[in-house]
Amino acid sequence: MRQLRRDTIEKKRQPGALLEAVLQARAMATIAVVGAGMMGSALCVPLADRGHDVRLIGTPLDGAIVRAVQAERRHPTLGLELPAGVRCFPVSELETAAVEADALVLGVSSAGVGWAAQALAPLLARRTRPLLMLSKGLEHTQAGLTVLSDSFRRGLPAELQAECQPVAVCGPCIAGELARRVPTVVVFTGRELGPARRLAEWIETPYYRAVLAADVVGAQVCAALKNAYAMGVAFGAGLHQRAHGERGSIALHNYEAAVFAQALLETRALVLSLGGSPDTVLGLAGSGDLTVTCNGGRTGRFGALLGLGHTAPEAIRLMQGATLECLEVLSVLESYLRIPSPARPELHALPLLSHLIAVGLHGAAVDMPFGDFFRA
Amino acid sequence: MRQLRRDTIEKKRQPGALLEAVLQARAMATIAVVGAGMMGSALCVPLADRGHDVRLIGTPLDGAIVRAVQAERRHPTLGLELPAGVRCFPVSELETAAVEADALVLGVSSAGVGWAAQALAPLLARRTRPLLMLSKGLEHTQAGLTVLSDSFRRGLPAELQAECQPVAVCGPCIAGELARRVPTVVVFTGRELGPARRLAEWIETPYYRAVLAADVVGAQVCAALKNAYAMGVAFGAGLHQRAHGERGSIALHNYEAAVFAQALLETRALVLSLGGSPDTVLGLAGSGDLTVTCNGGRTGRFGALLGLGHTAPEAIRLMQGATLECLEVLSVLESYLRIPSPARPELHALPLLSHLIAVGLHGAAVDMPFGDFFRA
Repeated sequence: MRQLRRDTIEKKRQPGALLEAVLQARAMATIAVVGAGMMGSALCVPLADRGHDVRLIGTPLDGAIVRAVQAERRHPTLGLELPAGVRCFPVSELETAAVEADALVLGVSSAGVGWAAQALAPLLARRTRPLLMLSKGLEHTQAGLTVLSDSFRRGLPAELQAECQPVAVCGPCIAGELARRVPTVVVFTGRELGPARRLAEWIETPYYRAVLAADVVGAQVCAALKNAYAMGVAFGAGLHQRAHGERGSIALHNYEAAVFAQALLETRALVLSLGGSPDTVLGLAGSGDLTVTCNGGRTGRFGALLGLGHTAPEAIRLMQGATLECLEVLSVLESYLRIPSPARPELHALPLLSHLIAVGLHGAAVDMPFGDFFRA
Repeated sequence: MRQLRRDTIEKKRQPGALLEAVLQARAMATIAVVGAGMMGSALCVPLADRGHDVRLIGTPLDGAIVRAVQAERRHPTLGLELPAGVRCFPVSELETAAVEADALVLGVSSAGVGWAAQALAPLLARRTRPLLMLSKGLEHTQAGLTVLSDSFRRGLPAELQAECQPVAVCGPCIAGELARRVPTVVVFTGRELGPARRLAEWIETPYYRAVLAADVVGAQVCAALKNAYAMGVAFGAGLHQRAHGERGSIALHNYEAAVFAQALLETRALVLSLGGSPDTVLGLAGSGDLTVTCNGGRTGRFGALLGLGHTAPEAIRLMQGATLECLEVLSVLESYLRIPSPARPELHALPLLSHLIAVGLHGAAVDMPFGDFFRA
């Protein structure tokens, strides 16, 4: 089946083949992507390359992006034109644009998941269809720590919950690179793998591949934690800059690597305590996503500002309103871990996380407590 | 005990304290470092900072370095002056310089381990003493794949083998950073942890910490493999440069991260097959050392040259005679894995390693076989 799909994609390059038309017709679908931020919009690129009817629908916060894409196809934050096969709609047209969709893709921020559940409920009530979630984060509820695919389900009316099992995308994927067709391998995970498989069959291209994984909790915990831990790795770049160091082989890479390894060990402890698998931490969703997050993006810039000596409030101001998932996840973890429970790791057993909470949320200095690391 | 040591170091900053003198006298030792390359010489910095009598002794290949350090203290490849407490000797003075040493540090390349066993045998015959090995690599012998601490032992006369259990240093440590006192955490591992503990007590400083680990095989296998796998991660930087990309958040980081995660999964398979522990791969010796190797050094430059489109022979020429551990370990692994055995993973189950062997040793194109990854 996988082989068939790959052949199909390759055959598209040979126009005129009869088989091509047949296979392409079979493969085509209507896909609605809700959320016109960077990640949702980037996913439209492989979807359009696969020949799907792609409908990119803004959230209430995406008005300016939708107007820009409608006017000139250029996505303002991705910095490139979206493919011709992508049509863009404002949130007011959500229901009409998405009603015929064979699958829904959710590209909202973690804070938007509650809104999305309410907004998509009428569509899901009409017809069950596969739902792919790009949102990453964790929620602390009375039930404990909840992964966002479960948060979304709980936001649906009770009668829809049983039928909706979102598929979460985890693993290393910088949106700007996916939109430029950089080879990318991600994880599709869900409590049911059937929808994950169907979505992968619709979405995969030679440059965007999805690996199916059953560890829905572990993968999403890794996806959320990586932002917090990447902030700590990025202290090294700021400290190096503060010492007037130049970018290169000799920097604070030893420092960064020790933080990186401690981050994966603590991630494993948290994943295990929440019922996930340690194997997930070693793979794409864990080590892969942590390394890519250390190489680019907002979290890295924010962590570097702290390493440079800025206080957290100063660094937040310098980030000019960018969403800082690292602080969100630190805040969720602090509220979760400060309630003692036999099922929860103790904060002192997570010295790096404790330190990042202290630096990011409570104004502590960045001095890394290396002496407390690697004691498990 | 650890606490005591840390206090000792801190007390040194308050001259005049009686306790300080007592403790310092207890802690002082004579340490001979054999091999004046970058890593051996860098380790002299924490040793000198701890107040030891440090004797840096060149190998037969280190003549120019020894003369330079003797003339002006400046180490030519580290690019800095060694501390005043380090005395440097040519290989002709090995025995006299090292005879009184309380501990030996071996800083030769993997190719020099056989020479070192012969050269150090007379010293070890006089007196057993802790031996710390900085060399990294693997050897393929009739007995299978051998870690270098065992290779060294086997190179000793039979009557000395039982008494010598080298301690291997693994984990993320760029020599140029250690020499500049960048915070560094490494792993000391050996078949006996007593010598590892004693060496750690002599060597640790606030910026150079050692974590003791019993998985002597797993840690050294990780240390050797990381050079091969970092070469593959570095293809991404070269491919990006080939496409006229600028350094920044948008590059081929998604590509690099997928290779990174596949590298750790394959490392785990190899470590497990050789009797090591999967935990080692997640920690400092595995993920930590791989990430630091991707951030600096020869292997990264060599892999980037291949990604840029140079053939392996061209890239080797452009590296101007630098030792390429990545090719050495690929060659050892190829010769080991091509002999089918139930105890050895099959090469097709290691698609990244197979590809790196094909590219590095047999002229294959760099195109990464992402479709074969993450299938285990």
